[in-house]
Amino acid sequence: MTSDILINKLKETNIPYCNFDKSPPSPAGNYGAIKIHKDLAYISGQMPFTGIGILYPSHQELTNHIDINEIGYKASQIAVFNAFLQLVKNKSISEVKSIVKVEGFFRHIEGTNLPKMLDGASDLITNIFPDNEFHARTVYGVTSLPYNAFVELSIIAEIE
Amino acid sequence: MTSDILINKLKETNIPYCNFDKSPPSPAGNYGAIKIHKDLAYISGQMPFTGIGILYPSHQELTNHIDINEIGYKASQIAVFNAFLQLVKNKSISEVKSIVKVEGFFRHIEGTNLPKMLDGASDLITNIFPDNEFHARTVYGVTSLPYNAFVELSIIAEIE
Amino acid sequence: MTSDILINKLKETNIPYCNFDKSPPSPAGNYGAIKIHKDLAYISGQMPFTGIGILYPSHQELTNHIDINEIGYKASQIAVFNAFLQLVKNKSISEVKSIVKVEGFFRHIEGTNLPKMLDGASDLITNIFPDNEFHARTVYGVTSLPYNAFVELSIIAEIE
Repeated sequence: MTSDILINKLKETNIPYCNFDKSPPSPAGNYGAIKIHKDLAYISGQMPFTGIGILYPSHQELTNHIDINEIGYKASQIAVFNAFLQLVKNKSISEVKSIVKVEGFFRHIEGTNLPKMLDGASDLITNIFPDNEFHARTVYGVTSLPYNAFVELSIIAEIE
Repeated sequence: MTSDILINKLKETNIPYCNFDKSPPSPAGNYGAIKIHKDLAYISGQMPFTGIGILYPSHQELTNHIDINEIGYKASQIAVFNAFLQLVKNKSISEVKSIVKVEGFFRHIEGTNLPKMLDGASDLITNIFPDNEFHARTVYGVTSLPYNAFVELSIIAEIE
Repeated sequence: MTSDILINKLKETNIPYCNFDKSPPSPAGNYGAIKIHKDLAYISGQMPFTGIGILYPSHQELTNHIDINEIGYKASQIAVFNAFLQLVKNKSISEVKSIVKVEGFFRHIEGTNLPKMLDGASDLITNIFPDNEFHARTVYGVTSLPYNAFVELSIIAEIE
């Protein structure tokens, strides 16, 4: 799938807070947003940054009347959106062929919520690549994440 | 090693609670148990599920007269068994050539136990592939895991 | 870059506690320090071991007048040094071409410190490969690590 088609598909998803006009989050150090090795793109950790800041910085700060699974779902959806944004804005990549692996790390103590939360990423990927064989994934709850983000995704994509 | 030989080798190990007749745990969402990219199989997170449910769901619930290292050892052994089961039941895979990488995530607070616990996975792999060069591995203790599992393994296998 | 050139470059960095004469830390089980698959070397978890033991085994034991970011920086610097040491001491590797991916796991509760801590690894890599495109990286804070280490790095290198 070319970057143009991928951008159009992403726009059709109408995910709140996802902004196509700005650049994706920049690396804050001596590393790259993407390292390409042959036909694989290793994407640095993506978080739920949006045009108006980082969403869901801390589940302690969340109000009680929002379901925590829904918050995790939206957070991983925005993080994987940013991963796609990194891919389409990278000039060395002409096509994104599939997502190979997603590793989701949530700053969350209740393990039973984790799979539903990462579905935000998996559902968006399947929405973009419906005919593709599924990606592999793993999900964990950890102690801390950069920017006190609620989720960080580590993704490998197959490219051309 | 063909799937038939691998199944026979697994049967010879006589690991308690490991059931060859049932299917391996299914993905519970829009992702796959395995994503194949060229000659590598990326296996989604495997946990100590058995025919009678998940073993060692919580170390708090464990009785005190069982050594925690032994519990972790058995849990990672069953999880890597499930990874092998995913490989042999996958119709696109004709041979498993080696295990490239094992990442072990334990829901456990005491770091000094972690290497001994992951040995349950490493020893079984070496039992199956004795002539093979060793796999690489990493091990971490995390806050939470799906199904409150005691361990989750992320594995990359070399296949044909 | 050949192992000889890489060793010389590492020596020029003059990192305290880094010893080129001793062997890198050995695996303590049925796994290898490095698994090579084609032109990628998957390096098992590296920690801040030095010739005089493990540095920074526990941030609780650290004195208050040392900045925690600086401690994490040095710990990840020594851990990535050990990863390079594993590469140059491996007889199957004639050249190290680039670092593809660094995953940093810190035993640390405050997420905002994590990126600065992992810079110790990223800066040393960029020092060694200044003309290279940057590596990808992810960083997490976890509950526990082997040997109660302060940091564990999981690294993939491109080799020949």
